[in-house]
Amino acid sequence: MLTDDVRLTDHHCHGVDTGDLDRPGFERLLGEGARGSFDSAIGLAVRRWCAPALDLPAHVGPDVYLRHRARLGGREVAARLLRASGVNRWFLDTGIGGGTADFAALVDGEVREVIRLEEVAEQVVAQVGAVSGVYERIEAELRARAAGAVGLKTIVAYRYGLDFPLRDHPPTSFAPEHRLTDPDVLGWLVGLGARIGAELGLPLQFHTGFGDPDLRLRHGDPLLLTDFLRRTAGTGLSVMLLHCWPFHRHAAYLAHVFEHVHLDLGLTIPYVGQRAGAVLAETLELAPFRALCYSSDGYGLPELHYLGALLWRRGLGKLVDEWLADDAITTADAEALVGAFGHGNAERVYPARFSRTVG
Amino acid sequence: MLTDDVRLTDHHCHGVDTGDLDRPGFERLLGEGARGSFDSAIGLAVRRWCAPALDLPAHVGPDVYLRHRARLGGREVAARLLRASGVNRWFLDTGIGGGTADFAALVDGEVREVIRLEEVAEQVVAQVGAVSGVYERIEAELRARAAGAVGLKTIVAYRYGLDFPLRDHPPTSFAPEHRLTDPDVLGWLVGLGARIGAELGLPLQFHTGFGDPDLRLRHGDPLLLTDFLRRTAGTGLSVMLLHCWPFHRHAAYLAHVFEHVHLDLGLTIPYVGQRAGAVLAETLELAPFRALCYSSDGYGLPELHYLGALLWRRGLGKLVDEWLADDAITTADAEALVGAFGHGNAERVYPARFSRTVG
Amino acid sequence: MLTDDVRLTDHHCHGVDTGDLDRPGFERLLGEGARGSFDSAIGLAVRRWCAPALDLPAHVGPDVYLRHRARLGGREVAARLLRASGVNRWFLDTGIGGGTADFAALVDGEVREVIRLEEVAEQVVAQVGAVSGVYERIEAELRARAAGAVGLKTIVAYRYGLDFPLRDHPPTSFAPEHRLTDPDVLGWLVGLGARIGAELGLPLQFHTGFGDPDLRLRHGDPLLLTDFLRRTAGTGLSVMLLHCWPFHRHAAYLAHVFEHVHLDLGLTIPYVGQRAGAVLAETLELAPFRALCYSSDGYGLPELHYLGALLWRRGLGKLVDEWLADDAITTADAEALVGAFGHGNAERVYPARFSRTVG
Repeated sequence: MLTDDVRLTDHHCHGVDTGDLDRPGFERLLGEGARGSFDSAIGLAVRRWCAPALDLPAHVGPDVYLRHRARLGGREVAARLLRASGVNRWFLDTGIGGGTADFAALVDGEVREVIRLEEVAEQVVAQVGAVSGVYERIEAELRARAAGAVGLKTIVAYRYGLDFPLRDHPPTSFAPEHRLTDPDVLGWLVGLGARIGAELGLPLQFHTGFGDPDLRLRHGDPLLLTDFLRRTAGTGLSVMLLHCWPFHRHAAYLAHVFEHVHLDLGLTIPYVGQRAGAVLAETLELAPFRALCYSSDGYGLPELHYLGALLWRRGLGKLVDEWLADDAITTADAEALVGAFGHGNAERVYPARFSRTVG
Repeated sequence: MLTDDVRLTDHHCHGVDTGDLDRPGFERLLGEGARGSFDSAIGLAVRRWCAPALDLPAHVGPDVYLRHRARLGGREVAARLLRASGVNRWFLDTGIGGGTADFAALVDGEVREVIRLEEVAEQVVAQVGAVSGVYERIEAELRARAAGAVGLKTIVAYRYGLDFPLRDHPPTSFAPEHRLTDPDVLGWLVGLGARIGAELGLPLQFHTGFGDPDLRLRHGDPLLLTDFLRRTAGTGLSVMLLHCWPFHRHAAYLAHVFEHVHLDLGLTIPYVGQRAGAVLAETLELAPFRALCYSSDGYGLPELHYLGALLWRRGLGKLVDEWLADDAITTADAEALVGAFGHGNAERVYPARFSRTVG
Repeated sequence: MLTDDVRLTDHHCHGVDTGDLDRPGFERLLGEGARGSFDSAIGLAVRRWCAPALDLPAHVGPDVYLRHRARLGGREVAARLLRASGVNRWFLDTGIGGGTADFAALVDGEVREVIRLEEVAEQVVAQVGAVSGVYERIEAELRARAAGAVGLKTIVAYRYGLDFPLRDHPPTSFAPEHRLTDPDVLGWLVGLGARIGAELGLPLQFHTGFGDPDLRLRHGDPLLLTDFLRRTAGTGLSVMLLHCWPFHRHAAYLAHVFEHVHLDLGLTIPYVGQRAGAVLAETLELAPFRALCYSSDGYGLPELHYLGALLWRRGLGKLVDEWLADDAITTADAEALVGAFGHGNAERVYPARFSRTVG
């Protein structure tokens, strides 16, 4: 397929657990909210695709898979799967899942950092407490961390919802929380991230769509960002809508009408297994081709990083093959499109802080 | 197909009308809200599939179909279609459509009752009026009826919406209504159902998604149940989200993150005709395989019970065939999955009050 | 395909720009909100389908296409594409894009007018100002314009949202706006349109679903019309839900439960390109066959009118072919269905003010 050899930029993922995992531990990481199970689309995909990548027969049972995995050891499994993914640039959200150094030791490609706004703010609050000047400290720390990063990330969808209030200034009467949930603080923090992102050329990533049960999914509908997107249009900020399912058509619409909006399907791809192509097809109804990026949102299990890449290649590959068979696109245009989705759009949007000679 | 012979548990349906039906009477039952018509996906499916089941040529016109149907008589039609459905366990919501005895006379399999919370409460109110102690009477009656049932059902989506308030106690200033619509009373009643269900091991079924025009569809989005589901997680209650369309991806997400949540596509399947497989595919993107059950929501016309089963078999069968052709699943796993969806998941979740030797 | 030769009634479109268009000017009209681009599903479709209709090779590059287009001249391009669309009745929303006379000079078929409520009201306000009696003037002007029209249109989705308040009377304290956004005035205006439409037999068209960035897409969900539809059921009014994507399943549900509701996919079809059939399939899950109409919502570029018709024929044609191959429908029924969608439903719902002898 046209997608077989395209190098990928995984512009949003996390580190992996290289320790030993028993079946409950593995399955916990195979779903959102500790509800994972081999009896699911993603479970079938692990057995079908990750097993052969580790020299087991396809479709091997869960227990055989996990025994073999334990025998190989977590580091070896991670190194094999991550290297087999065909990704040569990884942008790590270090807000959970460990830092870039650990991850870089497992892969061949470049590893860059994405800073999570809420994590940085909470670290500052934990250090300095509810002192006057805490907001200035947060801003200073964000700027310091951003200097070495390729992007910013917010999980305001989890903490309040994407209908957060737009705030130019922090509240005056704020009692700093160790886990930020105050909508006025969050609204200010996201606005601060947008300003820093516009200034430094760092895209601002939003968790949207499904995630773990801490989330109220209705509050993760990217359409709730409409006012924020109107306000940030033309400021130089690039916005990345992550994951998006089941609101991927909503996200595609936003990318259609706002030039600074991009999107990916993130953790949707490994989760939906066989349906990756179908979800991509729905997304491409309205999403401009300049707007779609690739990410796995892999976290904990390197299987997620691997399946993200593999199922994206297969799903997009089949879709493009159908278009070619139907004479809806030329081979040259299809190749350009696959390259743009796989790495070109990310290369255009993220800062050229990483070496362009890699890959 | 793998699904041809799987026995089914129809875990949510209603009784049938065995009287004579003219064309307006038949079409009225062929749609939600008296808007049914042969000129629809379900109308095509009746002509394609129910006609041959009654020894007519496939695709026969509506008037020929109805004349033949009248000649056979309503009881004979019902008995033939219900027996041809391959269902051997029927859980009847007796809130509308008649009781279990009438239905049992038409079928071979077991018939068990699902108690509708609102109907029981309204019967008590009609009997005793706005007396002090009416809430205790409702609880006592619910417990008495539940003792002989396999499940509980609520239509709070119709009466208020799935964003009903969570109430541990009934309101003190309530003027009992003959048709319950007071959100505080409904919130208490659903909470009572949840407690009784957890205690007795009876799943609580929620109407979600599309239905007749009494409904405001926006209020039937199962995501509105998020707080209720958080509160009932770990209490022992099993929740069944019925129908779900067009919010079936939302329901699948809830089943992914909450272990006590299950779902079906209910009346969606007979209604969407050829599209049954496509809707199932969307649902299985995120729904764990332990969570999906089968029901027809058949009401009035035995054609609905029959089409529910037939289109479910065909839709799921094609989907599984595609997975097999694509080497995404083994035959053994596919057989296990079909059995789980058809009856296994229901058998695990509903009480073993029915004989396990049937079927 | 069965759809190749069906004549179409394009029951909602706009005039075209026959001037010279450079690439930025063309691409601006190729998307909603000035965000169009050849790098999109619709861009591929222009190159694939419009190029050969103008005697260029399929898939020609954007610049070659636009040079050839400039050589032919805007009028010639418009006349060729509009005539090649197989549409023989055009209902023009004259609220934007020019009047019927200009358009009629470019096409063979009949051209009739659809009056936009907001435009008429704003013209009156601009003429008379905030005088007492302005509402009576608006009503008089609407009735005068309606006498020569086949339908009415409202863009309340843009101006406030489809959750506008239902108002029988205009507000007393209104300060007339040159661009109406007052919800009470809009609610009264839509109600007035509904009464005039019922009285004169003119369908009332609603913009629903996606459009340009002036819109808050969440406020364009047709389910927000539920109370309005309950109130207008049985009054003689026909309601047309336009475009609908990504809420086309919601619109299909409304058409299922309300007999006076119809829908189309409008600008969705040219925009989604290869996906037209998939979106139609989702819509037909629940939409009764009497309810679906055809429109292109073409505006500015005659390419949109042409692609609307062509992609609708191809998408519906493939879908019907699949149904035939699967023995889900007879050829006679499929032909009837295609005719109903293409022109029959519109002919039944719109007034017979146009000559029935055309086409």
